[in-house]
Amino acid sequence: MELAKGFLFSGLNCGIKRYRKDLGIAYSTFDCVAAGLFTTNTVKAAPILYNMKLLGENCTKIRAVVVNSKIANSCTGQQGLNNAYRMAQKAAQALQIDRRSVLLASTGIIGLQLPMDKIEAGIEEASNLLSEDPTPFAEAITTTDTFIKMSSRSFEIDGTRVSILGIAKGSGMIHPNIATMLAFIFTDANISPEALKKALKDSVEKSYNMIDVDGDTSTNDMVLALANGCAGNERIEEGSAGFLKFFENLHEINVELAKMIVKDGEGATKLIEVRVVHAPDELSARRIARSIVSSNLVKTAIHAQDPNWGRIVAAAGYSGVDFDPDKLDLHITDGKNVITVLKRGYPCEFSEEEANRIFLASEIVLTVDLNDGVHSATAWGCDLSEEYIKKNGRYKVWVRTL
Amino acid sequence: MELAKGFLFSGLNCGIKRYRKDLGIAYSTFDCVAAGLFTTNTVKAAPILYNMKLLGENCTKIRAVVVNSKIANSCTGQQGLNNAYRMAQKAAQALQIDRRSVLLASTGIIGLQLPMDKIEAGIEEASNLLSEDPTPFAEAITTTDTFIKMSSRSFEIDGTRVSILGIAKGSGMIHPNIATMLAFIFTDANISPEALKKALKDSVEKSYNMIDVDGDTSTNDMVLALANGCAGNERIEEGSAGFLKFFENLHEINVELAKMIVKDGEGATKLIEVRVVHAPDELSARRIARSIVSSNLVKTAIHAQDPNWGRIVAAAGYSGVDFDPDKLDLHITDGKNVITVLKRGYPCEFSEEEANRIFLASEIVLTVDLNDGVHSATAWGCDLSEEYIKKNGRYKVWVRTL
Repeated sequence: MELAKGFLFSGLNCGIKRYRKDLGIAYSTFDCVAAGLFTTNTVKAAPILYNMKLLGENCTKIRAVVVNSKIANSCTGQQGLNNAYRMAQKAAQALQIDRRSVLLASTGIIGLQLPMDKIEAGIEEASNLLSEDPTPFAEAITTTDTFIKMSSRSFEIDGTRVSILGIAKGSGMIHPNIATMLAFIFTDANISPEALKKALKDSVEKSYNMIDVDGDTSTNDMVLALANGCAGNERIEEGSAGFLKFFENLHEINVELAKMIVKDGEGATKLIEVRVVHAPDELSARRIARSIVSSNLVKTAIHAQDPNWGRIVAAAGYSGVDFDPDKLDLHITDGKNVITVLKRGYPCEFSEEEANRIFLASEIVLTVDLNDGVHSATAWGCDLSEEYIKKNGRYKVWVRTL
Repeated sequence: MELAKGFLFSGLNCGIKRYRKDLGIAYSTFDCVAAGLFTTNTVKAAPILYNMKLLGENCTKIRAVVVNSKIANSCTGQQGLNNAYRMAQKAAQALQIDRRSVLLASTGIIGLQLPMDKIEAGIEEASNLLSEDPTPFAEAITTTDTFIKMSSRSFEIDGTRVSILGIAKGSGMIHPNIATMLAFIFTDANISPEALKKALKDSVEKSYNMIDVDGDTSTNDMVLALANGCAGNERIEEGSAGFLKFFENLHEINVELAKMIVKDGEGATKLIEVRVVHAPDELSARRIARSIVSSNLVKTAIHAQDPNWGRIVAAAGYSGVDFDPDKLDLHITDGKNVITVLKRGYPCEFSEEEANRIFLASEIVLTVDLNDGVHSATAWGCDLSEEYIKKNGRYKVWVRTL
C-alpha cells in the first residue's frame, strides 16, 4: 500500500453502530486542492448539500473529511443541515482548523437524525487517534460491505514520486449517475483545481458510473479527491505532461475500487463485465453496457448459471440506443473458454457443456459487438441472488445489529 | 364475462410446450378496424416486425390473431421472419381469409426458431375448434402466468349495446415502454381506425405503461385492439359523444388487466400502488410513480414488510424529475390504516405497530404528495422476492417443463 504523503487517518466506534467502527476522519497536514462529484438524485442528503456549497466557495484549502456510517443524514430537513454544520464545526475545533476546510460524508439509513452527542464525542476522540494507517478510516465508512476497499498507486512525474490512495465503500443502492456511494481519493500530487476536477470527472464517468448492483441511485453518493501537493512535483495542469500520467493512475485506482464495490454487491456471487465494442460512438457503447449490466433478468440468469443470452440482447435493445440488430455479435467468456451465441443477429449453435463451464466462473465477460464503428465501453455488475433479497428485506434490522 | 359479438376463439397444445396450451387463434367473422402498440425495444421479435408492417398497409380489414407461447421468435434473423410469414399464411389458408388480414404474436424464450411443423398442424387444428369461449385462447398465450387474465365491459352508446373484451398475459420482463407483454382487446364497437388508435394509445400510457415487475422491456411486447363493428352503433369518431364512453370502458379493462399482470408478477406476493399527487405536470407525476414502483430496494423492503421509507424518497429523487424535497409528504396505507412518514420533507414519528399492520396487507398504497400543482399519476408494481430469483434463474428449464 503506497501512502500519499501528508495524510493522516483515524476511525473508531462512537456508538452509532453497536460494535463496529462508525466514524472516521481523514486529515491533511497541508491545504488541499479538492474536487467532488455528487449524486444526481434530486433528494440530496445534508452532507451532500453542505459539501456542494462549501466546494463552491473553497476548493483550494481543504484540510479534512469527516465521515459517519449507519445513518445517512438524508431526508432530515433543516435539523439535518444543522447537524452537518455542527459536525464540521466540531471537527474544525478539535483539529484546530477552519470550519470551511472540513468536508463531510454520511452513509446508512435515510430519515433518521444523527445522534449528535455521540458524533461530537467521536470526532473529539478520533482527532487524537490520527495516524498514517488508513485502515481504521476505511473500516469506519463501511455499512453492508463485507471487506474494506482500498487501492493505491505510486509513480513518477518528472522524476518526482507521486502517490494516490483511494478508499471506497459499497455496496447497496449502487447505480450511480455521477458518483457512487462514497469514494475518497487522497494524493500528495501538486495539481491545479481545474486539472484535479477534470481528471476526477473523466475517470468517474468510466469507473463508478459504469457499475451497477441494484439500479438504485443513493441520496448520498459522493466521490471526493484531495490533493495536498506534498510530493513537491511541478504543478500538474490540464494538458501538461504529468496530467496524463496522473489521470492514468487515478483511473486505475477508480476502476479497481469500482470493481471491488461490485464484487462486494449485496448478495453477489459473480462479477459481470460487459464490453460493448465497435460502437458508432462512446455514449451509445456506455448506454448499452450499463443497460445490460443493470438488467435484473441478466443478473438472475447469470446467478443461476443459465446461458439465457436472449435477455442480454433484450437489455441491449431497451437501452434507448438505436442499433442494427442484424449486425450484432455476442460472445460469452470466463477468460479461458468462449462461446459465440449470436453472429450478425443470428443465433449460433454452441456447446451446452462449454457454456456450463463458463457460467461456473466467478467472473464472466459478455462482449457485445455492434460491428458498426470504433468506439467501446465497459461496465461492471454483479449477479442478483436470493441473498440480495434477504439482506435488503431486513436491511434496517441488519444495519442496526452491525 | 360480457362477450364482444362476432369473435371466436380457440387454443390448444400443438407440442411446443409439453402439456399446456401453446397456440391460440382469435377470429372475427367480420373485418376489423385494428390498432397496435409495440415494444420500444430496438431488438424487435419477428411477429412485432411483421405486424408493424402489416398494420401500416392494412388496419381496417383484420380478421384474425394467431399467437404461440413458449418460443418468442425473437433474435431469429431472416428465418424468424420467414416463419412468421408462414404462420400467417397457414392461418389464412385454414381460415379461408387473406394472409394480410392475419396478425401474429409470440412469447417465450428468445433465440430459438419456431418448430414450424407443429405450429402449422396446430393452426390447422385450432381453426376447427373456434368457439365463443375465449378461455382456451387466454390459456394458450400464457407462459409463466399462474392465472389467466381477462376483463370485459358492456355499455350503451346511443342506446346500442357495445362490448369490449380484453385478454392479457404476463408476467416476467415487464417494464413496458409502449406495450406490455401481450394484451388483446376485442370489441364489437363500430369505431374509426383513428379513434381506436387514439383510445388505445391514451389508455395504454396510463395502464400497461405504468406497471413494473422487473424493469426489463421485452422484445415482444404488444397491445392489439380489434373492432369489428358488430354492435351496430353509430361510428365512434374522436371527439364524438360515444368516444369518451368507449375510452372509459376500454381504460377500465386495461387497468384491470395491467394490475392482474402485476399481481401475477413472477414471485410476487404484494401489489404496490404508487400515487403521485399535486405534481406540476402529469409527466413528472408519471416518472416519479414509475421510478418508485421500479425500485428493487422499495420492492424488497415491501416484500420483507419493512417500513424503510427512505428508499421510496430516494427512488423519487432519482426519477430525473426536479422537485422540491422540502415540500414532500409521504403516506403509506393498506386502505384501512394510514401512516404519514414524511411531512414537508421532515421525517415524522409513526407507530411501528401500525406500520407493521399496514405492511402485512397484500395491497399497499404509497402516496407521494409533491404539494406543487394539480396533476397526478398512478403506477403499479409488485414486490421482489426470493421466489423471483429462483424462478428466473431457472426460467429456461422451467418453461421447458410447462
